[in-house]
Amino acid sequence: MGEVVLHTYFRSSTSFRARIALNLKGVSYRPEFHHLRLGKHRDPAYLAVNPQGLVPTLVWSDGMVLAQSLAIIEFLDEVIPEPALLPRDPAGRARVRALSQMIACDIHPVNNLRILNALRSRFGADDAAVTDWFRTWVAETFGPLEQHLANDPQTGRFCHGDTPTMADICLVAQVANNGRFGVDMEPYPVIRRIHAAAMELPAFIAAAPQNQPDAE
Amino acid sequence: MGEVVLHTYFRSSTSFRARIALNLKGVSYRPEFHHLRLGKHRDPAYLAVNPQGLVPTLVWSDGMVLAQSLAIIEFLDEVIPEPALLPRDPAGRARVRALSQMIACDIHPVNNLRILNALRSRFGADDAAVTDWFRTWVAETFGPLEQHLANDPQTGRFCHGDTPTMADICLVAQVANNGRFGVDMEPYPVIRRIHAAAMELPAFIAAAPQNQPDAE
Repeated sequence: MGEVVLHTYFRSSTSFRARIALNLKGVSYRPEFHHLRLGKHRDPAYLAVNPQGLVPTLVWSDGMVLAQSLAIIEFLDEVIPEPALLPRDPAGRARVRALSQMIACDIHPVNNLRILNALRSRFGADDAAVTDWFRTWVAETFGPLEQHLANDPQTGRFCHGDTPTMADICLVAQVANNGRFGVDMEPYPVIRRIHAAAMELPAFIAAAPQNQPDAE
Repeated sequence: MGEVVLHTYFRSSTSFRARIALNLKGVSYRPEFHHLRLGKHRDPAYLAVNPQGLVPTLVWSDGMVLAQSLAIIEFLDEVIPEPALLPRDPAGRARVRALSQMIACDIHPVNNLRILNALRSRFGADDAAVTDWFRTWVAETFGPLEQHLANDPQTGRFCHGDTPTMADICLVAQVANNGRFGVDMEPYPVIRRIHAAAMELPAFIAAAPQNQPDAE
């Protein structure tokens, strides 16, 4: 078996998710850095690995290429069952997946760098308009997410019980992004509490953007 | 056990995904219709069911409320294993999930009704600009998706082998959306072939937007 390689960019929140999962599972990997803001993910050599030119991409020890951060996390959870990143029961798994997808489908894609760039180039959006766009879609989902987490007895120290799951991975990566756009986190006490609990764990700390070798 | 209820809107492609999965699994359900264009998903009664006010929401026979279409599909696949909507092997599952997420994360959210509306209201985008926006993000992902499907020997009659999976569900629902924005499908022969194969199946036909009771 060969080495595990993660194609990553320090500031990419989807790369952050993959790094947390790899750390939680105890998988050591060699990072390959792609500077998204300089367009390095569009290099032909990287497009040969991942034709979408997105990060993260995980190259597993057998050479298999895996794209899409949630698919990567579920794969890691299937091949390395402990510590579990999804509950064992179908209802719990559905809840964790839904919480994850609230962030991974309803917030992250519409606030992604390529979209913010398109707002500037197509519609002349300035910094204020881009920031307002970003905050709008966070608030649209973080409101219901906070309400859900606050009202559901399945919420514990983390989003689902007292150990971190895929939902916490998504939550932490989104909160990190929020910081760059000055999102007011005051209305979200449960999200803040869970974020703080997760950021006490070495696997989350080591995966944080500012702790990556390619951080600026 | 009570009845299964699906909160749905005929034109919502995420509702389309849930309808296909329910049909493939042979689950009969009572649809509750929410007219998104008239803002009916913002009714307080519906927000009490799903605080995000999005469709689909599945209320399972035990009363459990499930949000997010991919989480719903994975839940159905776990509680009703046959016919399988994901392969058995972790590598295959990762591939099907990644193909699904290419559509569910990278295309659908940025072309969703709320985003297109925001482009109009915030930036004065006209019909032509909205259509171009929609087509841009389809092309950005359908190009690599076509390439992946064409080059990977795991592609069969469907995205992964010869039976429909979650990836085909996402593909078919996206192709239906594309039609409303006049996306040129000529560059995507494999996607067109898979779409045609899926739309021969009764489960897909019965789930199609135009075959819903709330279709206009």
